[in-house]
Amino acid sequence: MAKELVFGHQNPDTDAIAAAIAASYYLNKKGMDTEAVALGKPNDETKFALDYFKVQAPRVIEKADTKEVVLVDHNEAAQSVSNIADLTVTHVFDHHKIDFKTSAPLFYHAEALGSTSTILFTFFERDGIEIPKPIAGMMLSALISDTLLLKSPTTTDVDRKIIGKLAAQAGVSDIDDFGIHLLKAGTNLSKKTDKE
Amino acid sequence: MAKELVFGHQNPDTDAIAAAIAASYYLNKKGMDTEAVALGKPNDETKFALDYFKVQAPRVIEKADTKEVVLVDHNEAAQSVSNIADLTVTHVFDHHKIDFKTSAPLFYHAEALGSTSTILFTFFERDGIEIPKPIAGMMLSALISDTLLLKSPTTTDVDRKIIGKLAAQAGVSDIDDFGIHLLKAGTNLSKKTDKE
Ligand SMILES: [Mn+2]
Ligand SMILES: [Mn+2]
Ligand SMILES: [Mn+2]
Ligand SMILES: [Mn+2]
Repeated sequence: MAKELVFGHQNPDTDAIAAAIAASYYLNKKGMDTEAVALGKPNDETKFALDYFKVQAPRVIEKADTKEVVLVDHNEAAQSVSNIADLTVTHVFDHHKIDFKTSAPLFYHAEALGSTSTILFTFFERDGIEIPKPIAGMMLSALISDTLLLKSPTTTDVDRKIIGKLAAQAGVSDIDDFGIHLLKAGTNLSKKTDKE
Repeated sequence: MAKELVFGHQNPDTDAIAAAIAASYYLNKKGMDTEAVALGKPNDETKFALDYFKVQAPRVIEKADTKEVVLVDHNEAAQSVSNIADLTVTHVFDHHKIDFKTSAPLFYHAEALGSTSTILFTFFERDGIEIPKPIAGMMLSALISDTLLLKSPTTTDVDRKIIGKLAAQAGVSDIDDFGIHLLKAGTNLSKKTDKE
């Protein structure tokens, strides 16, 4: 099986980075050969999470140099890698509206949950794959980031149910305290509300 | 929660009918209020399955009279109900290539498995929802129909794994014997190979 790159959208937020890391780990456990990459450098909030959980930032790519790719936290070509038109998308994990066209069947899971990391958690759980502590930490950060600590209107019961499981797995005992430090590390809270 | 219609593509095959029945049952178990309908009368093969498992054919609609709908076994507007442009799609369960656009997030699960009924089986199993015998029978028929008794190149390991579970749940002891009778009931086997 040829190697595939896994990435989130341009101008990545914490969910775009965390979901790429989590999806790559998940798909490798399912027998694929993937690498998490990013379409831009991590922002200050994401840097805080990467430092906190001692995770290396995914390398930044300009163009994908594999034939097949996995999209997380986005699906529209305009938000994706520059050469997306030349690539085959084999999997999509996303929680946004859809504007997507392929010439072949693929794995596509979209669900209106608070974050793409929330969606990935449901697949880890479904398949009984344990989430390593640093990856759980990144997914927790993404969930907090996208839902503004469960306060955004996009927050669902599934998000409320799994945040504790992710925190336990990540070794975070005080979710509110961690969450406030994470969100504060982002330069501008109000900007996030517009984006997600 | 307002009522939603669930339907497969125009000129329905057995999977389009069975997946609508199965998805409607599944979503109602999850707390929704849905009705399985069809965009055309059942073909001879589907009629055989409906008679065999004593299931009523879903009523045929020309236009959807609910605001929200669920698509199974298709996603493209050209294959869908005539007034699809005026409707909100809340869920898609499908195994075809994608040409789809929405203005809001939704539940969308596509996977390159042998039939949409196979996909639905994985969700019943994930959520621990038992499949009633007649519905399991229709799903079994759809899987057999779309994969030509596991012989089509679209057949996957998942299809091979679950066909026995569906047959057991449906009370079908000889899958090959049932399958050959089902496929023979369709007027033209070769036509099916082109379509799916
Ligand atoms: Mn994002
Ligand atoms: Mn997101
Ligand atoms: Mn079909
Ligand atoms: Mn089908």
